[in-house]
Amino acid sequence: MLNEGDLILLLSEDNKKYLIEYQTSKKFVFHLGYVEFKENLKYGDILLTNKGYKVYILEPSNAEIMINVKRKTNIIYPREAGYIITHTNLKSGSKVIETGTGSGAMTIMLAKIVGNSGKVWTFEINEEHLKRAIENVQRAKLEHIVEFHLLDPSIEGYPISGVDCVIIDVPEPWTLVKPAYNALKNSGFWASISPTIEQVIQTVEELKNNNFLDIKTVELLEREILVRKGKTRPKETMIGHIGYLTIARKV
Amino acid sequence: MLNEGDLILLLSEDNKKYLIEYQTSKKFVFHLGYVEFKENLKYGDILLTNKGYKVYILEPSNAEIMINVKRKTNIIYPREAGYIITHTNLKSGSKVIETGTGSGAMTIMLAKIVGNSGKVWTFEINEEHLKRAIENVQRAKLEHIVEFHLLDPSIEGYPISGVDCVIIDVPEPWTLVKPAYNALKNSGFWASISPTIEQVIQTVEELKNNNFLDIKTVELLEREILVRKGKTRPKETMIGHIGYLTIARKV
Amino acid sequence: MLNEGDLILLLSEDNKKYLIEYQTSKKFVFHLGYVEFKENLKYGDILLTNKGYKVYILEPSNAEIMINVKRKTNIIYPREAGYIITHTNLKSGSKVIETGTGSGAMTIMLAKIVGNSGKVWTFEINEEHLKRAIENVQRAKLEHIVEFHLLDPSIEGYPISGVDCVIIDVPEPWTLVKPAYNALKNSGFWASISPTIEQVIQTVEELKNNNFLDIKTVELLEREILVRKGKTRPKETMIGHIGYLTIARKV
Amino acid sequence: MLNEGDLILLLSEDNKKYLIEYQTSKKFVFHLGYVEFKENLKYGDILLTNKGYKVYILEPSNAEIMINVKRKTNIIYPREAGYIITHTNLKSGSKVIETGTGSGAMTIMLAKIVGNSGKVWTFEINEEHLKRAIENVQRAKLEHIVEFHLLDPSIEGYPISGVDCVIIDVPEPWTLVKPAYNALKNSGFWASISPTIEQVIQTVEELKNNNFLDIKTVELLEREILVRKGKTRPKETMIGHIGYLTIARKV
Repeated sequence: MLNEGDLILLLSEDNKKYLIEYQTSKKFVFHLGYVEFKENLKYGDILLTNKGYKVYILEPSNAEIMINVKRKTNIIYPREAGYIITHTNLKSGSKVIETGTGSGAMTIMLAKIVGNSGKVWTFEINEEHLKRAIENVQRAKLEHIVEFHLLDPSIEGYPISGVDCVIIDVPEPWTLVKPAYNALKNSGFWASISPTIEQVIQTVEELKNNNFLDIKTVELLEREILVRKGKTRPKETMIGHIGYLTIARKV
Repeated sequence: MLNEGDLILLLSEDNKKYLIEYQTSKKFVFHLGYVEFKENLKYGDILLTNKGYKVYILEPSNAEIMINVKRKTNIIYPREAGYIITHTNLKSGSKVIETGTGSGAMTIMLAKIVGNSGKVWTFEINEEHLKRAIENVQRAKLEHIVEFHLLDPSIEGYPISGVDCVIIDVPEPWTLVKPAYNALKNSGFWASISPTIEQVIQTVEELKNNNFLDIKTVELLEREILVRKGKTRPKETMIGHIGYLTIARKV
Repeated sequence: MLNEGDLILLLSEDNKKYLIEYQTSKKFVFHLGYVEFKENLKYGDILLTNKGYKVYILEPSNAEIMINVKRKTNIIYPREAGYIITHTNLKSGSKVIETGTGSGAMTIMLAKIVGNSGKVWTFEINEEHLKRAIENVQRAKLEHIVEFHLLDPSIEGYPISGVDCVIIDVPEPWTLVKPAYNALKNSGFWASISPTIEQVIQTVEELKNNNFLDIKTVELLEREILVRKGKTRPKETMIGHIGYLTIARKV
Repeated sequence: MLNEGDLILLLSEDNKKYLIEYQTSKKFVFHLGYVEFKENLKYGDILLTNKGYKVYILEPSNAEIMINVKRKTNIIYPREAGYIITHTNLKSGSKVIETGTGSGAMTIMLAKIVGNSGKVWTFEINEEHLKRAIENVQRAKLEHIVEFHLLDPSIEGYPISGVDCVIIDVPEPWTLVKPAYNALKNSGFWASISPTIEQVIQTVEELKNNNFLDIKTVELLEREILVRKGKTRPKETMIGHIGYLTIARKV
């Protein structure tokens, strides 16, 4: 049964998606009319708009939360987030640092993965971004797992140590290599994402010079296949680039 | 401090990786000589082989465990596993079904993500595979999170229901669409991986005919970038294809 | 020196391209104003619009002609055309069949490659398309190299034989396998392009059953790199799919 | 009918390819035995080895010549060559400069495209490479179209001007930007290929600073699809990178 304030994903008949909070007192208005939320709804239920269109109430996936949080900043995309999770030691119970917080999209993802027995420390230098991120994490009801910091770790360092993983999404990742080294446990992981190759080159140099090993940079391409019996084909357009991922580990 | 039997990753000076158990009574012999394990070692420590080469003791990443478990079967690769995690609702505490178990590589990954508050039910029809998978999960010390079943759910159905996610890696995924529908909670996720496009077409048809919505098929390409100041370039070879991923959800 | 009626490519200061005919009596009006063409202009000259913007007069590349011809149909893209040229025996002097003509974009490309000592026979069943194609080929001043046919070779066969190469861009390429076999010289090449995988599967089956050998299907991905010192990166969007190319040869 | 010395491609039953000269006096020995060449053979004929295996005599494609010429150097691959052809104004009759010659693989391709009414000037600083290239061009019977130069145009400049296109495959393409500008006709094309991104960045800077416009850098990915009814899939391995192509034009 849904609780007041739960995040829900509305999926319309024509495949549009809306990430909203479940509020029994409010109408949700969109291009196919509006729906009202009764009490005692649950994921999987189907509503009808006032114009008679079907709307599905779904539990949002990790990716749908990431992509649909309120944001003004770029975000690590779900496919890059997934790659980071599987190529570091992230798991239920992990201790992880994130820098910068941005909209909190990756923060939410991390908090869901590490769970109640884990912890996420997230660092951001833009106060407005941090405020929005806190709201987004609260909407996802994960604020008990996350500690928010308004500070620049390239100057002040990280106020913690022994973490399993440090995830970096800032314009100058190389400025965080030394602070990250100090914050990581032995054998812990660095993961950074950068859109340009010059950022990557400078970051990898700095990692090599600071006792990080097993440094690997990749980019991911995702192709959607339109599967329709008799006319199956890759989609005509695709995203060409989000960023390069660099994974390394402290020794 | 490492405990007897812990999984460790040995990284040699020349970047070879070995996933082994930490056993203080045993030598580990490889192409650069051998090392002996003293007591009280920890992740990040550096050993010397009898021939004087450095070896790093590292905590294995999720990907390194997946790729290096003892196996005779194909496996879902880390990048595909990451995509599944971020595009379903997998998180600390999730209840998830996996079919087939294979070597247990994905089982281990799932168990680490769902953690002690979650649960993985895994199904396999090949007794030998299941036996090896159990061993692999035990080496990773995750057997308390996993329930192993030697049965064919396309015939017998799944003996559980209300799970968050069903992950399918068998040659005929379409035979599991109806059993998966019954096992999933409302709004729960289907994820399957198949190497051939004909498998995908048949699976997507069956999903469409059985009240699955928001069906999406993708393939992922991963390019490694060799980052070396002044001569940075993508790697000359790459993996061209692992499989197509199909994600859908029950309504 | 440009001749009346020559195809020219106008490149504006803001990188827009216009493929037009050089006509000294006409103004060319576009979003940055208009330009008038004096006599005795030549490729590489720079004009100013009435609003003071620079416009370059350039010789159109093969690709620019292909992409900018007047058309209502899909076209083989330059990268696919290039692949066909290098993976068959196309060269100056080749005899080649094209089906269907479409807008004539590929026809023009082929005529430029085979030149005065070669020949292109092109087949189209849509009279309106063929008319436009003839106009496009005439604008490119290549009509002496091309023979246009309004007929369906899947029914009537090709009225020629001994050609070096047959290039197929129709919805049902498999219907042309037998006619192509009869039209090709020994060791000659089949090249077809199809957007869906089902078309490819059926075409390849038919090629296998009709004495074609060395059958290969590929798809090409083209990534643009935005090269700007200090912020170099792949373009964020890209074309995900044009079509699958199948190359084979008669024995 | 084949002439003594013609290049032929032998395709064995098990899909191995051999590019050799047709010589009636010689045996060709390979892993399935040997074949002898009678007189009056022609493309498309089938021979039997002394062990009873079939061998097809085929006309080599442009790509097969490129890939199979005797060589010790890297080469522009057929897919990159095709892209250059379609994205410049190369055609029957073109005048084109190539630097460096390498094995002559691209030289042969260019000579076939420009034909008897065109011309290729090719420049190489390694005498041994140039000698091999001349032999390869002679085997392809195209030496009347090609002029070979043993000189370094970055120092001496090009001894010709007014060419349609300049194609550069050397480690420091930026050193040839000014010589190329002088050799090109107005509106003529620059095309260079480089494996590393740093080479590309430096080359593009130099092109921008020397009146080249419409500069575009791309990389091509080619995926082979294994088409077999019921089990169609992309090939498991692929080439990840040959080089970046940069196309520009003089104004």
